[in-house]
Amino acid sequence: MNTFGEKFRLTTYGESHGPAVGGIIDGCPAGIAVDLDAIRRDLARRRNGAPRQEEDDIQFLSGLRDGITLGTPIAFEIPNRDAHPDDYANLEHLFRPGHADFTYFKKYGLREYRGSGRASARETVVRVVAGSLAKQLLNGIAISTSVHVDPAAEQSGDTYGGTVQCTVTGLPIGLGEPIFGKLNAHLAFAMLSIPSAIGFEMGSGFSTAQMTGSEYIDRWNPDGSTRTNHCGGVQGGISNGMPVEFRVAFHPVVSLPHPVECLHEDGSLHTLTIGGRHDLCQVYRAAVVVEAMTALTLANYLL
Amino acid sequence: MNTFGEKFRLTTYGESHGPAVGGIIDGCPAGIAVDLDAIRRDLARRRNGAPRQEEDDIQFLSGLRDGITLGTPIAFEIPNRDAHPDDYANLEHLFRPGHADFTYFKKYGLREYRGSGRASARETVVRVVAGSLAKQLLNGIAISTSVHVDPAAEQSGDTYGGTVQCTVTGLPIGLGEPIFGKLNAHLAFAMLSIPSAIGFEMGSGFSTAQMTGSEYIDRWNPDGSTRTNHCGGVQGGISNGMPVEFRVAFHPVVSLPHPVECLHEDGSLHTLTIGGRHDLCQVYRAAVVVEAMTALTLANYLL
Amino acid sequence: MNTFGEKFRLTTYGESHGPAVGGIIDGCPAGIAVDLDAIRRDLARRRNGAPRQEEDDIQFLSGLRDGITLGTPIAFEIPNRDAHPDDYANLEHLFRPGHADFTYFKKYGLREYRGSGRASARETVVRVVAGSLAKQLLNGIAISTSVHVDPAAEQSGDTYGGTVQCTVTGLPIGLGEPIFGKLNAHLAFAMLSIPSAIGFEMGSGFSTAQMTGSEYIDRWNPDGSTRTNHCGGVQGGISNGMPVEFRVAFHPVVSLPHPVECLHEDGSLHTLTIGGRHDLCQVYRAAVVVEAMTALTLANYLL
Amino acid sequence: MNTFGEKFRLTTYGESHGPAVGGIIDGCPAGIAVDLDAIRRDLARRRNGAPRQEEDDIQFLSGLRDGITLGTPIAFEIPNRDAHPDDYANLEHLFRPGHADFTYFKKYGLREYRGSGRASARETVVRVVAGSLAKQLLNGIAISTSVHVDPAAEQSGDTYGGTVQCTVTGLPIGLGEPIFGKLNAHLAFAMLSIPSAIGFEMGSGFSTAQMTGSEYIDRWNPDGSTRTNHCGGVQGGISNGMPVEFRVAFHPVVSLPHPVECLHEDGSLHTLTIGGRHDLCQVYRAAVVVEAMTALTLANYLL
Repeated sequence: MNTFGEKFRLTTYGESHGPAVGGIIDGCPAGIAVDLDAIRRDLARRRNGAPRQEEDDIQFLSGLRDGITLGTPIAFEIPNRDAHPDDYANLEHLFRPGHADFTYFKKYGLREYRGSGRASARETVVRVVAGSLAKQLLNGIAISTSVHVDPAAEQSGDTYGGTVQCTVTGLPIGLGEPIFGKLNAHLAFAMLSIPSAIGFEMGSGFSTAQMTGSEYIDRWNPDGSTRTNHCGGVQGGISNGMPVEFRVAFHPVVSLPHPVECLHEDGSLHTLTIGGRHDLCQVYRAAVVVEAMTALTLANYLL
Repeated sequence: MNTFGEKFRLTTYGESHGPAVGGIIDGCPAGIAVDLDAIRRDLARRRNGAPRQEEDDIQFLSGLRDGITLGTPIAFEIPNRDAHPDDYANLEHLFRPGHADFTYFKKYGLREYRGSGRASARETVVRVVAGSLAKQLLNGIAISTSVHVDPAAEQSGDTYGGTVQCTVTGLPIGLGEPIFGKLNAHLAFAMLSIPSAIGFEMGSGFSTAQMTGSEYIDRWNPDGSTRTNHCGGVQGGISNGMPVEFRVAFHPVVSLPHPVECLHEDGSLHTLTIGGRHDLCQVYRAAVVVEAMTALTLANYLL
Repeated sequence: MNTFGEKFRLTTYGESHGPAVGGIIDGCPAGIAVDLDAIRRDLARRRNGAPRQEEDDIQFLSGLRDGITLGTPIAFEIPNRDAHPDDYANLEHLFRPGHADFTYFKKYGLREYRGSGRASARETVVRVVAGSLAKQLLNGIAISTSVHVDPAAEQSGDTYGGTVQCTVTGLPIGLGEPIFGKLNAHLAFAMLSIPSAIGFEMGSGFSTAQMTGSEYIDRWNPDGSTRTNHCGGVQGGISNGMPVEFRVAFHPVVSLPHPVECLHEDGSLHTLTIGGRHDLCQVYRAAVVVEAMTALTLANYLL
Repeated sequence: MNTFGEKFRLTTYGESHGPAVGGIIDGCPAGIAVDLDAIRRDLARRRNGAPRQEEDDIQFLSGLRDGITLGTPIAFEIPNRDAHPDDYANLEHLFRPGHADFTYFKKYGLREYRGSGRASARETVVRVVAGSLAKQLLNGIAISTSVHVDPAAEQSGDTYGGTVQCTVTGLPIGLGEPIFGKLNAHLAFAMLSIPSAIGFEMGSGFSTAQMTGSEYIDRWNPDGSTRTNHCGGVQGGISNGMPVEFRVAFHPVVSLPHPVECLHEDGSLHTLTIGGRHDLCQVYRAAVVVEAMTALTLANYLL
């Protein structure tokens, strides 16, 4: 439920306005020199442009000695220094539209209404730490992302979403397992687990549903590479040596900068402006989370 | 690897041209009267229009007595009666384009070249049996699909793909778990595990990446339902009581009805017409597999 | 529930008086030449002296071609040819003492009363097949067992139990994981999962609870071996290069050769002689199951 | 590896002489009022008589608000305040007899030599916290232990071990799963995962290997209880309503109070007195760990 992966396994915790968020990484090999600066750089990329401007002070509690992994679980935590839970006092009995307030309340019978609690995108800071560490295990493999937003939505003054294109180069042939261990299926799972993700496609994705087979099929080069990469670098669930390419769609930020109609627990509707600090667009920040989840997924296959 | 699910767990086996395909379902409650005719109807829907016209004779080896589940593992098998492995004799050292021949060979160092072996869509017959049984556990929940193909591709004489739209009604509120147990993420995993699936989106999916937040956000009705369903019935990974709606893209069939260039193990390219019996479009058949994987996913949350 | 292991994973099925028992092995590497005769020899050892004298005809349905593993799931089945379910007709509403009839009925609300159904030791035939195959992966590792029974009990005409001593030589140093992945803990789990197993101890086991530390401690030889092996070859959950030694206690067979008092579902007690074919002692047969479960446990660490 | 359980899942971390030990509990239901004093009492019982006399200050970082569980992961940590890593400086290249120094070094190629690192019994403090919380979920179920030591060993001035007898009352009938989900097998796994545990037996255990079937068999009372409980309350892996009874053997403490011969990495043997603070007997402290692991095991079946 709060654990991702089998061999390189991340377990996360933390409410957005509790004392800290953090996690435990289990399965990291011993003897790796961890580049803490690289982790801090990824954290800064995730924070970049975020209204909540605390620096993410990461503390490691186990699994490292003098910066070298011991092969034991790596526990880390990041305090929630800049939490303003009072911003949310007026939401105690209201369900915001587009948020998980309603589903959490119905599921658990109570909720951490301050800043979405566990459903906040604050939890992704933990994924970025673990993913950044996972990247350091992926020798010769490069994960890169680009962000695409709709200019019309961007200029609306409203919130907006976009897509993240991710490309992985340097992967060996043969990563992935048939049937229920497919690399593309595990990537889809990883991506849809990111807050606000609403779509996933490999290679040419949905557009291939309009192609003929002759248009779609990736033709061979004699060296086993292909002239096109419509399939996105995975055949039968297994990497084929071409770049692994996929795209993730993110819906617009659901915390709007103007009044919205909230549902009260008693069934009445209330129009109000919601406090807290929110982005107009989260996709630039999401890109580093896409990279992190990609790295975590690949580490599970490669270890 | 060949197991799907935790609580209602399907483990599958079988090469397309071996003696049988089959599986074991673990976790099915005791005392359920299994409707074998409903299973056979789903098998017929999957077979419908398929060039390989064997009837799927299913045999149950355990877990049932007089058609009632015992709570023990349900093993079943379907013989491969209509297998023509000789159709594939000329492919022993060739890799077809668009197929998993190359990746399997590189991964395992050998391969079952006859009819794609384990990578064949033949394995989906096992998913349909298990999914059809899973549907029978989902009281009051309806899973329906519709198929959408591109008319231009359909009329090309070439192979083509399409999309399957799936709608689930009658789900309780609260299905799904936060973070790494999200209903949408598990559906994405289940769908991308289907052969030829290349994209997945919840609700309005990729199109929401061009919306503003005000366009995207699903507004409340006083009863907790929403006026639109752009999110596809899941908020924060948890079902919100609206229909769960998603779409799966399938790329065109990669076994083309005309000569294609294959790669020989020695690096030479050979143009030939590939034998075996293949559809021009697999999406109609894939729809019942989408339903099956949806039912298996939901059974794991509901049990 | 019916699956053992993570990397070399066995899933089993079958009621003792249904059509067959069998299983699926997932995770066996490709390219292994399987010695079917060795499997048959282990099956004969398990059958040896058993009242139910059918030969175990094993059929492989997938995962092998020409006796070589394909890396895909290996499904196998063994028909229950010699089943005499009518022997059990008078037990339909009775709970035998010492059997699982009562607990199964209370748990599931129904039961396969013929020959204990799933609780029968018949299921161990599946473990022996998988374990025998697992042994073939353990190059240079030898698993041997010896059986110890109490002469007084043996001469009583009544049923009796005994212990199985198991010794594993040739294991590399370093097998096992700290905390919850300990080799000794996984062996304990594997052994207590065998029908009639009631105790497990490593090395000198329970007797060490009466030792002083100076008596217990295994003193070093300069080469890293130890002069004694009270710990049973595992330190901190990890193999230390000495033989791994453990002992499993089996309680007496609970199907007595004379009348016993059974409990009726209505609360009345009925004295009767129970039919079916049963051993006076199962420990000789259990030894090969101990070996099989040991091999399965080790294969999960070694792969 | 460092995770115990499926539904009520504990993941632990921490080296004995690092900054902290701790864990994450995933799967605890929402709305439980946690009795922190009960947890502190169990921690005090574990500490009782221990040479390392720090109080265990437990801090909760998530999953609780005002002492009520939120249904989200519960993270907690306990600082290692009283760590004296310099006590171990002379052990940097030595392997103590009876310890895991050697196996950890051989497995990981490095080691945390200070106070055994991850292999230290210090990690059990985390189990006690989680187990104490698990107990609070087990309404109407009582777990009690008694300790048995050998008087001769106790008076020797040397270290010694002993056994812990554990009795669970109030369990419903039907807990446990057949084949590989047996309650007794999971208890065996849980117990053998405790540092220094070397044996496990249900009910009358090893002594039943000398009984006849007539002596062993537990005779019915009309209400479904039995007159004896040789089987220890579990039949076919499933609780039968009688008290669940088992015994765990602990070997003597391996840190002796007098000089011992250590193995140097260069193969030479060195006799020295080992520093650090150690018990002569750990079994009294182990009893609360036995209870904790029992509670964790049962919570996984009951949730």
